[in-house]
Amino acid sequence: MPFSEFETDVIIRPDDIDMNSHVHSSRYMDYVIAARYDQMRTHYKMSMSEFNEKGLNWYITVTHIEYKREMKMGDQIAVRTKVLEASGAQAKVGFKIVLKKSGKSAAEGYFVYTLINTANGRPVRIPDDVVERYSI
Amino acid sequence: MPFSEFETDVIIRPDDIDMNSHVHSSRYMDYVIAARYDQMRTHYKMSMSEFNEKGLNWYITVTHIEYKREMKMGDQIAVRTKVLEASGAQAKVGFKIVLKKSGKSAAEGYFVYTLINTANGRPVRIPDDVVERYSI
Amino acid sequence: MPFSEFETDVIIRPDDIDMNSHVHSSRYMDYVIAARYDQMRTHYKMSMSEFNEKGLNWYITVTHIEYKREMKMGDQIAVRTKVLEASGAQAKVGFKIVLKKSGKSAAEGYFVYTLINTANGRPVRIPDDVVERYSI
Amino acid sequence: MPFSEFETDVIIRPDDIDMNSHVHSSRYMDYVIAARYDQMRTHYKMSMSEFNEKGLNWYITVTHIEYKREMKMGDQIAVRTKVLEASGAQAKVGFKIVLKKSGKSAAEGYFVYTLINTANGRPVRIPDDVVERYSI
Repeated sequence: MPFSEFETDVIIRPDDIDMNSHVHSSRYMDYVIAARYDQMRTHYKMSMSEFNEKGLNWYITVTHIEYKREMKMGDQIAVRTKVLEASGAQAKVGFKIVLKKSGKSAAEGYFVYTLINTANGRPVRIPDDVVERYSI
Repeated sequence: MPFSEFETDVIIRPDDIDMNSHVHSSRYMDYVIAARYDQMRTHYKMSMSEFNEKGLNWYITVTHIEYKREMKMGDQIAVRTKVLEASGAQAKVGFKIVLKKSGKSAAEGYFVYTLINTANGRPVRIPDDVVERYSI
Repeated sequence: MPFSEFETDVIIRPDDIDMNSHVHSSRYMDYVIAARYDQMRTHYKMSMSEFNEKGLNWYITVTHIEYKREMKMGDQIAVRTKVLEASGAQAKVGFKIVLKKSGKSAAEGYFVYTLINTANGRPVRIPDDVVERYSI
Repeated sequence: MPFSEFETDVIIRPDDIDMNSHVHSSRYMDYVIAARYDQMRTHYKMSMSEFNEKGLNWYITVTHIEYKREMKMGDQIAVRTKVLEASGAQAKVGFKIVLKKSGKSAAEGYFVYTLINTANGRPVRIPDDVVERYSI
């Protein structure tokens, strides 16, 4: 497997907390999306806006989240992601949200992203130079 | 005052509720914004997307919200808005969020909107035909 | 299969729209959660707050969402859900988000909910009277 | 004026961005709320949860936001806040959201917070030891 795992710290905000006094379930997804944005720019050296400038965009096709532990206001957390496979127009990205204090997992799962040609909204084969950048 | 007051029902969603088990303060703003969108289309017969097609956009310049009562999951609410004044590039819109069961106010305040030329991001005088449509 | 499918209309709000001018991916989850809340109260005659009063709570354990089509501001949508199976402490709920104009699916998938004893945070077997209420 | 100004970095997330490709207006409020949470813990050494343990809570009574500049994905921002006055049950907190690259203001305004007795939901005079902690 040529793909590396990257980690991004995420700060829990009060507006992420729901009536059960823990992070609302849909915000787990937003934390992973935020981590990928950061990692695209920081590690792959190709931010989402660079994709957009080339007439490309990554759309989310599948999200699968398994909730393991709750996260509370003040918890220190990080999101680890790793490309699991990439072929055709799609990349499958595994993730884990980690409670930094205990090292335990708050959630695990994967997202499938599809590369889209912005002009016509159709899937487009991931260019070789992108695969190369991601193969670190 | 030639401007009318309009009312839009808003449904409280679980993701609007915060750690205090009531609607989170920033969602009050989102409810007012949602109501204005609805009212632009329904009452002024000129939706936000029609503005966008003309190269125009309404940006929010000031929001002032006075919180009167909490809103809880299951509460029936409505947002009433009314243009208070419109001159130059700006429209000042007053609002009230009403708890329908008691008729009492959950919040009151005003937003100042500025009409923007999308091409250059600069404020643009509200066209006469827009003022006319809003003068109902 | 003794379980019925229920449908709830959801209103798309401007704050649900992201930089791609369509509904943000995590809001799909919020729409399903909102629909379930509504259906618990309306169809099962046992709202989330009634569960809470009995010292019970439904926590989300798995979310699986397959994104089929984008939703835009102004689209009329509905969320259909159906219990697929219920055993032990868990209920698996299938869902479909439908674009009402075309009848086409914007997303499909399932959520696994776990019934929790609020006092100790542990899973608790779904009581018979709850299974009965859900078996409509 | 015995009150200090504090600064907290905030990370812009993709889910904060709206159809106009900039930070959605209600998220400005969430950034200020997040900064205050951080500053209560870090600078006043009295976090929101410590207030809650004493049967107290800070509710937002007024928010006034003047939007000066847009914030985009990738912008480095910080929120500066300062208690402007505190008397009876209320504290008025001024804020400025700053674009770190240019030093320019993205927004300015104030929030009025009211201290609440959690048991009965009524306003309660800010205790002397809290005023003292805040007077740094």
